[in-house]
Amino acid sequence: MSWQRKVLRVDLTKGTCETEPLNMEWAQEYLGERGLATKYLWENMDPEVDAMSPENVLIFATGPLTGTMASTSGRYAVVTKGPLTGAIACSNSGGKFGAELKYAGYDLLIIHGKSDKPVYLTIFDDDVQLRSADDIWGTTVWNTEAWIKARHQNPQIKVASIGEAGEKGVRYACIVNDLHRAAGRSGVGAVMGSKNLKAVATRGTVGVSVDNPADFMKAVEWTHAKMAKHGGRKELTELGTNAMIDMMQNFGGLPTRNFAAVQFEGVDKINPTAMSTPNEHGHTNLLTNKACFGCTIACGRIAHIDEQHFTIVNRKEYMHASGGLEYETAYAFGPMCGVDDIDALTFAGYMTNEHGYDPISFGGTLGAAMELFEMGVITEKDTDGVALNFGNAEALTIMAEKTGRAEGFGEILGLGSKRMCEKYGHPEVAMVVKGQEFAGYDSRALQGMGLGYATSNRGACHLKHDVFGPDMEDQTGKGKAQPCKDSQDFVAMVDSTGLCLFAAGAGMKPNAFQELMDAACEGEWTEERMLECGERTWTLERMFNLAAGLTKADDDLPARLKEVPAPSGTAKGKVAEIDIMLPEYYEYRGWTPDGEPTTQTLQRLGMSERVGG
Amino acid sequence: MSWQRKVLRVDLTKGTCETEPLNMEWAQEYLGERGLATKYLWENMDPEVDAMSPENVLIFATGPLTGTMASTSGRYAVVTKGPLTGAIACSNSGGKFGAELKYAGYDLLIIHGKSDKPVYLTIFDDDVQLRSADDIWGTTVWNTEAWIKARHQNPQIKVASIGEAGEKGVRYACIVNDLHRAAGRSGVGAVMGSKNLKAVATRGTVGVSVDNPADFMKAVEWTHAKMAKHGGRKELTELGTNAMIDMMQNFGGLPTRNFAAVQFEGVDKINPTAMSTPNEHGHTNLLTNKACFGCTIACGRIAHIDEQHFTIVNRKEYMHASGGLEYETAYAFGPMCGVDDIDALTFAGYMTNEHGYDPISFGGTLGAAMELFEMGVITEKDTDGVALNFGNAEALTIMAEKTGRAEGFGEILGLGSKRMCEKYGHPEVAMVVKGQEFAGYDSRALQGMGLGYATSNRGACHLKHDVFGPDMEDQTGKGKAQPCKDSQDFVAMVDSTGLCLFAAGAGMKPNAFQELMDAACEGEWTEERMLECGERTWTLERMFNLAAGLTKADDDLPARLKEVPAPSGTAKGKVAEIDIMLPEYYEYRGWTPDGEPTTQTLQRLGMSERVGG
Repeated sequence: MSWQRKVLRVDLTKGTCETEPLNMEWAQEYLGERGLATKYLWENMDPEVDAMSPENVLIFATGPLTGTMASTSGRYAVVTKGPLTGAIACSNSGGKFGAELKYAGYDLLIIHGKSDKPVYLTIFDDDVQLRSADDIWGTTVWNTEAWIKARHQNPQIKVASIGEAGEKGVRYACIVNDLHRAAGRSGVGAVMGSKNLKAVATRGTVGVSVDNPADFMKAVEWTHAKMAKHGGRKELTELGTNAMIDMMQNFGGLPTRNFAAVQFEGVDKINPTAMSTPNEHGHTNLLTNKACFGCTIACGRIAHIDEQHFTIVNRKEYMHASGGLEYETAYAFGPMCGVDDIDALTFAGYMTNEHGYDPISFGGTLGAAMELFEMGVITEKDTDGVALNFGNAEALTIMAEKTGRAEGFGEILGLGSKRMCEKYGHPEVAMVVKGQEFAGYDSRALQGMGLGYATSNRGACHLKHDVFGPDMEDQTGKGKAQPCKDSQDFVAMVDSTGLCLFAAGAGMKPNAFQELMDAACEGEWTEERMLECGERTWTLERMFNLAAGLTKADDDLPARLKEVPAPSGTAKGKVAEIDIMLPEYYEYRGWTPDGEPTTQTLQRLGMSERVGG
Repeated sequence: MSWQRKVLRVDLTKGTCETEPLNMEWAQEYLGERGLATKYLWENMDPEVDAMSPENVLIFATGPLTGTMASTSGRYAVVTKGPLTGAIACSNSGGKFGAELKYAGYDLLIIHGKSDKPVYLTIFDDDVQLRSADDIWGTTVWNTEAWIKARHQNPQIKVASIGEAGEKGVRYACIVNDLHRAAGRSGVGAVMGSKNLKAVATRGTVGVSVDNPADFMKAVEWTHAKMAKHGGRKELTELGTNAMIDMMQNFGGLPTRNFAAVQFEGVDKINPTAMSTPNEHGHTNLLTNKACFGCTIACGRIAHIDEQHFTIVNRKEYMHASGGLEYETAYAFGPMCGVDDIDALTFAGYMTNEHGYDPISFGGTLGAAMELFEMGVITEKDTDGVALNFGNAEALTIMAEKTGRAEGFGEILGLGSKRMCEKYGHPEVAMVVKGQEFAGYDSRALQGMGLGYATSNRGACHLKHDVFGPDMEDQTGKGKAQPCKDSQDFVAMVDSTGLCLFAAGAGMKPNAFQELMDAACEGEWTEERMLECGERTWTLERMFNLAAGLTKADDDLPARLKEVPAPSGTAKGKVAEIDIMLPEYYEYRGWTPDGEPTTQTLQRLGMSERVGG
């Protein structure tokens, strides 16, 4: 162990639910979660199929350490072909759903086909059933969770579901579990919706066992103690991820008004200090922090809106205390759209959780729409009468709800920046890589981040590498290939264990992951071997993308970042040096100048896979 | 033990929360829950005060067996002066709230005064706080529970709260806990609302201990085994309380169209068979049964509406799976209003839980309004344009929601039958005792039930006595006084232990209650002594009512039951013989012909209390 050695395979077209033994050879090569799901995806589908077609395969995957005593062990990943990008999509999430799915006895849940009617899947240990979702199709994520718990009379059931955004094909719809945790990016929720699958609900009592309990508990104790003392852990606990907003503001790397600026004048109204300071009416936005399953960091925020004085929205039936601002939400709704109203940001955040869509892509798309509006390309006739100027907090709240329901202009916003800007004849306004919007780091200031964005297999993403240290020290673009590639492989390894990437930012070094893995699982696990699993995963994702038709041209940044210098901050006058970094990166990866893994590289990784399957 | 020996006293006017030792002398005389709360009410307030004034006292009380391993140990009672009747109100409820309150360390929660702003009370063991309810005032019971659990980030918190009905003074508003369990009758929720108290939320970790664990577990095992084999238990488990509807239909004791008839042609569409049989679209109303804390009966029903085909109401945001039809709900919305649409009945039931009001009094009042409408006394001008004819299912659903929100004609319905019929100049149409509406048993067919209705201290009620056996055998009214009085004392005892009255209907005889009590609590408990506690409680309730200004004249049935013979069924041609039964009853109780306990009776019961305090 601590794999459950069991895969649940559901064919929605046929209506069948079957189990099969986990392929342990693949588990030894790809660990679990992200890596193993990628391998199963590769072996189970043609990368060229349309992401929204029944032929796409949707995989929920836990890792070998998911559900164990190790800190941050609540992760699961959703891997599929992404409808926003046409590339592989790999989104992971925390909360408690992943651990519950593993407790029910499964490493992977593989979903094929498309149901002819809306269904939801219940997994209660061995009792697996597809059930009619007639009563919940069209409802929000929150009502779906409540309904399922009431329907099965068990509040301990964990639910991962889609809202109307996923049902209606919003290209960046996500899968939400535990009310405000999400497999958030690249549109995995739209794939689920295209299959007429509303929710997966699970309750498990099988448990999880580790290979060497005594050694494992020693490793757990050691890593817990290390994290307890770590400064990064402390900051995440006390301030949450939004601590980053002050740092990016000071550094001048905070994308503002669709990347027109890199610093935002309203930061003080939406940063962690603003969240925890009572407003003039004595209302404090932040209520408490909150941990996912088994986590000793607890970076999550629980916040509530000052409903008494929030003039834009006042809906008494609303659940007021829910997931609060993370950095990416704060950035995407705040600086990106020029909005500095903390209640409006919090409300829009509720909308993304309640209706199930990615706040980063939504904020990016809304920022692009605001630019189009200020350019005069679109007018109030296009936007349901709403003035889409930068800084309009009410517009943010209205469009957040419209997008969640794919109504009116919300349906256009649901296309994502790329499709929307192309529709209006201004593709240059879309700030994306592979069609996916950027996180809150400007790659003119953070060069290695730019390389990470450009090469991330799921499109622009800040969570698949960590070049933060080198980026703070050097803005020339030199020497980024090595830390970028090495950290990509490291992150791919972490994402394949069942632990959270933030554990690495909170004190867990590679040897900590290795010790936990070695004690928990059969086989001998060295750091080197584990990192090789990460590299193998990265490489197989790349091969999926190449087989899907992506090329070197998709590893690029928008012209605005390459040509328009940063207007202020530490990077004032600088542009993104992707053209310097990319060739160096390909070479360091052992790829051809066109970005294809060489035969030697594949042999070095022991990969029998070939482009084209 | 197993009292916690601690009382929590909250003064809403002063904003104070204090604890004091439980008066153990009183506990030995009145057991707990209903009895002990009555004693505390008697000692703490003037019975003449207005029920809706700050001077009224509101007591939540657990019993000595609440929260123990005994079956059905989830009960708590709410005792106060009732705004519907002007008499003592005593409503008890199941679910999990009562056990949780006891686990937090309290036998009684006594609430005085009135807060100047809406508040809710949190009781987390010793951490007791009054908190602003600004954000939840005006919301439903269901949203209040969800908000409190989210606000305090603990789904294990148990909540007892009021909806808009309680806030707005609907005379029969109730206090709802665990979404669909309620202290339902006599308007205890309106008292809570008049105090600006929205909710009591509790989570306890103190636990409960019993005096003699070995003996107690033996008694638990014995009573569990007895109930497991009992036919009454089996029927309650399998069919729920609605099993009664077929029996009453056959017997001819089912009040129909405001007591115009005693049998209802639509019974087959709303009985347990209808609940569990798929409709033409394959939808089954009943989902499952559900137990309260510690209960081995599980009479509760969980049902859902066929939303796809229910043309009257279709609200997708609705929580569809919730408390289903109990007999009293089925009777009050069905026969009483002439409606036979199971989805409409289920929806109206949701409304009573969601907005917090008593379905029996609502159905009775709506039935009376329908009679007034068909008489032409009120018209669509009065009823917001709704045709209030008997049998109009849509009218039922509309008025159920309007009453919950005290909007439009719902505000009039919220007055109860007596006040409404007086307002329109037809007091004879109100079918009530002491201003409270009848349960689903016609006292022309069930004579002893009529005596119970007339003498019940909280107004017409079917739950304070049990003369069912004798009533099935004799319809002359003779020989009812003795079983009525004896069962009233027995029920008062059961209601004071912390166990459920249905345990008695499911196999627990007096000796079972005695053995559990004797093993759990200090002191020597015989059946005789326990029944005397019950009689003492009944007598003290009576003295409260006399002191509040009620007289013999309030122990009467409406003229319609005394003068208009039953039109069909086993009691065809018969009327309610209350005038025969009442004098016999007073005498058997040891009361004067005016219904006042004699000095000898009070001395026999060792009661130092006197009328007038």
